[in-house]
Amino acid sequence: MYRLVINPQQKEENQIKLTDSQAHYLRRVVRLSDGDGFIALDGEGECWQVRLNPDGGEIIASIKENKELSTKVYLIIALPKGNGLDDVIRCVTELGVAEIFPVTTARTLPKPNDHKLQRWRKIAVEASEQSERQVIPIIHPPQCFDQVINDLKSLDYSKYIASARASAPHLITYLADLPAKIVVAIGCEGGWSDDEVRRAHDCGFQEISLGKRILRAVTAPITVMSLIAGMNEK
Amino acid sequence: MYRLVINPQQKEENQIKLTDSQAHYLRRVVRLSDGDGFIALDGEGECWQVRLNPDGGEIIASIKENKELSTKVYLIIALPKGNGLDDVIRCVTELGVAEIFPVTTARTLPKPNDHKLQRWRKIAVEASEQSERQVIPIIHPPQCFDQVINDLKSLDYSKYIASARASAPHLITYLADLPAKIVVAIGCEGGWSDDEVRRAHDCGFQEISLGKRILRAVTAPITVMSLIAGMNEK
Repeated sequence: MYRLVINPQQKEENQIKLTDSQAHYLRRVVRLSDGDGFIALDGEGECWQVRLNPDGGEIIASIKENKELSTKVYLIIALPKGNGLDDVIRCVTELGVAEIFPVTTARTLPKPNDHKLQRWRKIAVEASEQSERQVIPIIHPPQCFDQVINDLKSLDYSKYIASARASAPHLITYLADLPAKIVVAIGCEGGWSDDEVRRAHDCGFQEISLGKRILRAVTAPITVMSLIAGMNEK
Repeated sequence: MYRLVINPQQKEENQIKLTDSQAHYLRRVVRLSDGDGFIALDGEGECWQVRLNPDGGEIIASIKENKELSTKVYLIIALPKGNGLDDVIRCVTELGVAEIFPVTTARTLPKPNDHKLQRWRKIAVEASEQSERQVIPIIHPPQCFDQVINDLKSLDYSKYIASARASAPHLITYLADLPAKIVVAIGCEGGWSDDEVRRAHDCGFQEISLGKRILRAVTAPITVMSLIAGMNEK
């Protein structure tokens, strides 16, 4: 059944007010008619069985489903070159990420424009619909790496930084008892500078490895999410 | 240090005969000169420290490194649409796959042309060089799914088939004691037909899940390889 993410403000009692583009999409692209059913989600965990009508959609029932991970996963991702983050956001959304912090580091290119942020958020919505999630991950605006690790410093999360060449323990060795909230920072193609690793360490991050081979910047976050989701759902 | 995959026949005692295009690449693109070092691999596990010279390369020493998984992983992948398999091959090569069987199924498009196979093999070589593997994964020509599962039927490997909607156990529950050889079959966007799952079962495959969310055909193989590599190297 087609899944549509709505803004929580679009719900008024048992009626969902569709935007013009949502109504157009449901009727012209998905080819639904009045009386046909679809699933609406507010992206924050609420989910309803809805029937299309001339005013928008009538809520028939609340759906109790939960395909979210019980562990909240926060990924700090050094901006890869080009459109590399598009694919990463799509994959890690499917795998259940909670929040993504794109960051600039000593070895990334400068901050991308706001247009990219809108694009990433759209990808996160689409990937949430397609993978049948209830919660849309939060994509933060790009920030400097130091800003993010300092903001997280006082929070009691489990924090890791992935290192391509370190002889650090494998991430999976820390996942036997999954914490409620876990942060993993993943570098760009050039890796982290020694200074960045040291500052992350000062903010409570432990170095981890993702295996003996060198993973590209776009593979590493998918591997991290695969491992955490797998250990969470086994 | 630059890593170059050679054909085993290119090695004659302590000398490596470079092809014209390899010599051109090393001198013009990587910008090495006579006396500069690089690493040569035969793609089957042998690896040498080499010094460039006018005749090709002189082997200085054998390198004892092993970044391969101790478990051999065979992935059967239903052909995704478009160029989807390109990215999959790149990622699963980085993660240590041994062999890839692209297959046609009831819900895939017809067999691609031979040009694609050449392209996939080139990607596997490049990804092996970049991820610093010693062994180049084998990419088999596309075959019908039934052919592959029948060929594997009599072999004593652990065999799994990933099912998007099954309430099957998660793959990771089978990975605590990793077998020496493991086969995982991953469907295309439309999933497997019931008949295909039944026939795979008859050939010794067990159904597994990759989590509660629906993964795209290009994400699922990366997740499978991430989990197996992680459990192998923890």
